[in-house]
Amino acid sequence: MMKPFITFCLSLLALVASAQNLDRVEPPNWWVGMKTTHLQLLIHGENISQTDVTLSYPGVELESVTKVENPNYLFVDLKLASNVEPGKFNIEFKKGKKLVATYSYELWEREANSANRTGFNSSDVICLITPDRFVNGDPGNDEVPGMKEGLDRSYKWGRHGGDIRGIINSLDYLQNLGYTAVWLNPVLENDMPESSYHGYATTDFYKVDARFGSNDEYRELNEELDKRGMKLIMDMIFNHCGSEHWWMHDMPMKDWINNYPEMKITNHRRTVHEDPHASKADISALVDGWFVSAMPDLNQRNPFVARYLIQNSIWWTEYVGLEGIRQDTWPYPDKNMMSEWTKEMLEEYPNFNIVGEEWSVNPAIVSYWQKGKYNQDGYKNHAPSMMDFPLQSAVASGLKNDETWDTGLIQVYEALSNDFLYPDPFHLTIFPDNHDMSRFYVQVGEDADLLKMGVAFFLTTRGIPQIYYGTEILMRHDGSEHGDIRADFPGGWEGDKVNAFTGEGLSDAAKDMQKYVANIQNWRKSANVIHDGKLLHFIPENGTYTYFRYTDNEAVMVILNKNAEEKAIATDRFKEVTNGYTSGKEIISGKEISDISKVTVPAKSAVIVELKR
Amino acid sequence: MMKPFITFCLSLLALVASAQNLDRVEPPNWWVGMKTTHLQLLIHGENISQTDVTLSYPGVELESVTKVENPNYLFVDLKLASNVEPGKFNIEFKKGKKLVATYSYELWEREANSANRTGFNSSDVICLITPDRFVNGDPGNDEVPGMKEGLDRSYKWGRHGGDIRGIINSLDYLQNLGYTAVWLNPVLENDMPESSYHGYATTDFYKVDARFGSNDEYRELNEELDKRGMKLIMDMIFNHCGSEHWWMHDMPMKDWINNYPEMKITNHRRTVHEDPHASKADISALVDGWFVSAMPDLNQRNPFVARYLIQNSIWWTEYVGLEGIRQDTWPYPDKNMMSEWTKEMLEEYPNFNIVGEEWSVNPAIVSYWQKGKYNQDGYKNHAPSMMDFPLQSAVASGLKNDETWDTGLIQVYEALSNDFLYPDPFHLTIFPDNHDMSRFYVQVGEDADLLKMGVAFFLTTRGIPQIYYGTEILMRHDGSEHGDIRADFPGGWEGDKVNAFTGEGLSDAAKDMQKYVANIQNWRKSANVIHDGKLLHFIPENGTYTYFRYTDNEAVMVILNKNAEEKAIATDRFKEVTNGYTSGKEIISGKEISDISKVTVPAKSAVIVELKR
Repeated sequence: MMKPFITFCLSLLALVASAQNLDRVEPPNWWVGMKTTHLQLLIHGENISQTDVTLSYPGVELESVTKVENPNYLFVDLKLASNVEPGKFNIEFKKGKKLVATYSYELWEREANSANRTGFNSSDVICLITPDRFVNGDPGNDEVPGMKEGLDRSYKWGRHGGDIRGIINSLDYLQNLGYTAVWLNPVLENDMPESSYHGYATTDFYKVDARFGSNDEYRELNEELDKRGMKLIMDMIFNHCGSEHWWMHDMPMKDWINNYPEMKITNHRRTVHEDPHASKADISALVDGWFVSAMPDLNQRNPFVARYLIQNSIWWTEYVGLEGIRQDTWPYPDKNMMSEWTKEMLEEYPNFNIVGEEWSVNPAIVSYWQKGKYNQDGYKNHAPSMMDFPLQSAVASGLKNDETWDTGLIQVYEALSNDFLYPDPFHLTIFPDNHDMSRFYVQVGEDADLLKMGVAFFLTTRGIPQIYYGTEILMRHDGSEHGDIRADFPGGWEGDKVNAFTGEGLSDAAKDMQKYVANIQNWRKSANVIHDGKLLHFIPENGTYTYFRYTDNEAVMVILNKNAEEKAIATDRFKEVTNGYTSGKEIISGKEISDISKVTVPAKSAVIVELKR
Repeated sequence: MMKPFITFCLSLLALVASAQNLDRVEPPNWWVGMKTTHLQLLIHGENISQTDVTLSYPGVELESVTKVENPNYLFVDLKLASNVEPGKFNIEFKKGKKLVATYSYELWEREANSANRTGFNSSDVICLITPDRFVNGDPGNDEVPGMKEGLDRSYKWGRHGGDIRGIINSLDYLQNLGYTAVWLNPVLENDMPESSYHGYATTDFYKVDARFGSNDEYRELNEELDKRGMKLIMDMIFNHCGSEHWWMHDMPMKDWINNYPEMKITNHRRTVHEDPHASKADISALVDGWFVSAMPDLNQRNPFVARYLIQNSIWWTEYVGLEGIRQDTWPYPDKNMMSEWTKEMLEEYPNFNIVGEEWSVNPAIVSYWQKGKYNQDGYKNHAPSMMDFPLQSAVASGLKNDETWDTGLIQVYEALSNDFLYPDPFHLTIFPDNHDMSRFYVQVGEDADLLKMGVAFFLTTRGIPQIYYGTEILMRHDGSEHGDIRADFPGGWEGDKVNAFTGEGLSDAAKDMQKYVANIQNWRKSANVIHDGKLLHFIPENGTYTYFRYTDNEAVMVILNKNAEEKAIATDRFKEVTNGYTSGKEIISGKEISDISKVTVPAKSAVIVELKR
């Protein structure tokens, strides 16, 4: 959506600083015309706190300069007038009368319509990609001098070489599959000694990992997506950084990190946030404990940490042109800061989207965080979307389990019945699987028919579907460890014998699945009734489950049939929604149905019928 | 609590009617000084609709007389002035000038403090009794001439002869066990050809089943309870009547009963009430379907049915002096009528209690109905209590399952974490089991240690505990059918070889359990911190679960230890609540604990420690 105002290379910035004792000014630039008029700069440099800070620029007021425990840090608060003009000004650092450092700070003009950007929503289908494992578009960045981990494609926990260039090269493939949005697992620098490929241990919050590419390439990816009308979702982690983050070697304050230096691991008992009987000890153990020992736990109650993270998320949104953020480990950071963050993001970008990862199969817990939820404890978060783990679990179990009173398709039905808990279930992000769990195909016993039913379901029920890369070619795995699940996408590497892009070496079943996904997803692009229609569903009967998406003028009927034989479904039971419709078109087969009073659904399959009057 | 204003025998009432064509006036009497000023009489008699109705009494206004489809019914609406005096007046039924029937209607004075009666609450422990299976106090009513089912103690679905007299005779036993309230399964007439013992197929809403006793004896039971400071809870069923109810042979209107005469069984899918995507067809199938074929489904949308049921519940409350109502099959009647009913009951009796049976293990579903709940669909019910099926299920599973990341005591902990869903979790009715499920002892594998831990838990966590009769003597069953579970209480029948009242023939384990229950329940009577204290619990660790009930001045610590060996628990982790306390007294053993910094809990047991400063 957004084009960069000026071509900009972050690595050049350091050179602008005129003295060696100034190595970080973050955010490195800002924009004019933001709703937030406050800007707090983190300044890092040897003994920088011994200097006086001055600047002079119309509309920029130096509000305060804060020294902290570590003399190598300063926090500089600026106030920007609403009419401040884009441009540059010097921030000068003086010791007495001696100028010891200068930073040329830039205020950029915002992209037109930046504030009103449309976040990802129910008109989209999101492709989730693990960058290291998708396509190696630039073998030249596989090994980066000075970085701790190099290439080891033979090791499932190692770096395999996938990168942003590879994703840019694959956009036509994704577009042809019908995807309209891309969520990448984190791309920021993870200069960690091992397992850095996953990206969840940030070592620099303002820099794309050089093995994935550059900040410019990340922006180029968004430009290419924009050209195709596709959206970009950034994976962010506020809870922690990597233990090799630069500030871990020169901590600003004692309470920058929780449980430091004596690390404690979190209890992972996330219900303490909602539990009216939870102990303070257990809440602190969850929130202040480290996710794992390589990920120091950021203390978001420290207002400087909170401001740093909030500004960082706004910076990337403006800089790259994001249409959404996926926030990792949602219930682990301080909940009040998370509330403030989501509030500020939506004030800045009212139509933006944020989806949080609260990995609970209890919808009451997940719903606690969604924007507009009435919570009895008075807590308000403002996340427009949450990851719908309860539905994921119900669909996987429901398809795999036998049909009984309380197992099978009834599990899917009852999971959706719980939507009364959510202020906006239509804005939840729904998914058959993701990078942290066995692939849905494996979850349903490597039964391609069940996978297809699941995919058809997620593409037609309420919510914003997200599909993991490789689902379209029946990607599977033997082991169930993360390194197994996040396998290399065939065709992404020079010399791959199987190539999903060309079809070379793909099984017929995989090719068939590619067509299946592309068919439904491309139809869905213009199926407004799926984007905006209500949902009406009927209690499953005899191994079948029927539901409708409908508006005043349109209706789509979906029937899942889990039986080993075809079923002829009499639609009289559904007349409260089918009234007035007589015929239809089935999307998957493309067949016209002249009389919808009885609809035949093949064995173990879904039909999607656009109803016609 | 209440003594009858005048001795009153309902069966005499029919004689007051001066003509044979008037066989029912219901409610048969009413009270002055009620908040509700409206009273609707159902009049039944041959061709009664062909008569004109007149009456004359100061403060009683004949508002309207409604004829319905069946000429044998009239509905007479009266308005009672707030200052109307107790007394009698004739309601006259004339055909032209000819008086064809007279009914002497009485307005009674209310018991003092009737409106302000205190309902059952968290200071109580309720004993649930299945009257037919507890004690046969009056063998003279085992067979009642003219009633369809007689005695057959050898048949598990038959009537065994237990009665109200037997319960009256057993009150000292119940009181000594520490019970402060009694809930009886339904006692109203069930003149059904089979399985009438359970009482859930009412054939007369104004008459106690003659095989259980009389209306007078029911009132006598309450008087005897009142003498002991004990409360009475009546089991009511608004959803249905028995197929042999008198009106089934002469229906007032076509829509008095749903799906009549072509009966349809309910779908039992109770989530449709909450589900925002539910179909009208499925909602109707739940609400209008019959519970079973012998139980015609009352149509509470019919305003005459609704008024009849609401008045009936008020009538029994006044007549007997109830302290609470347990309402059967909560989500099956019309939900708007249930809202109106609970609202009117609480207007009439602000401190009364009503507990509803919503048999769901999903707390979001159960919480939907509790008084004060904010529901997004705007629905409001006013039930102060609900049966806590989710907690029951969690405790049974949690005690029986192995200790893993998500099974074992963590299930208990997480069930209570869900309390954020309830407007008032402290007012839920909690129970290890009831008459509809396997006894808790059987659910935990007939392990008396686990049963004790469960009982100790339910008697000390938040809520109003209810225990099924016979739990105190380890009652068990081989079959799991209702008739097996609701077994005869030993000692309740002449000649029983085992007698729980005298101890004769009881196993040592059963005697030990009696003492265990009596010990905790009698302590609980005056343990205000258990009645009114907050709950604070800690994440289970190493097969132990610790929680506290506390106020500003008092604290009780409970520790459950599921391990096969004793555990010494360091209490430092709990200091946010133990601060200031140094010693304590353990309730079950009676032992003093001089230093609470470390507390030893025997293998597979609970300790309950009153903390002292």
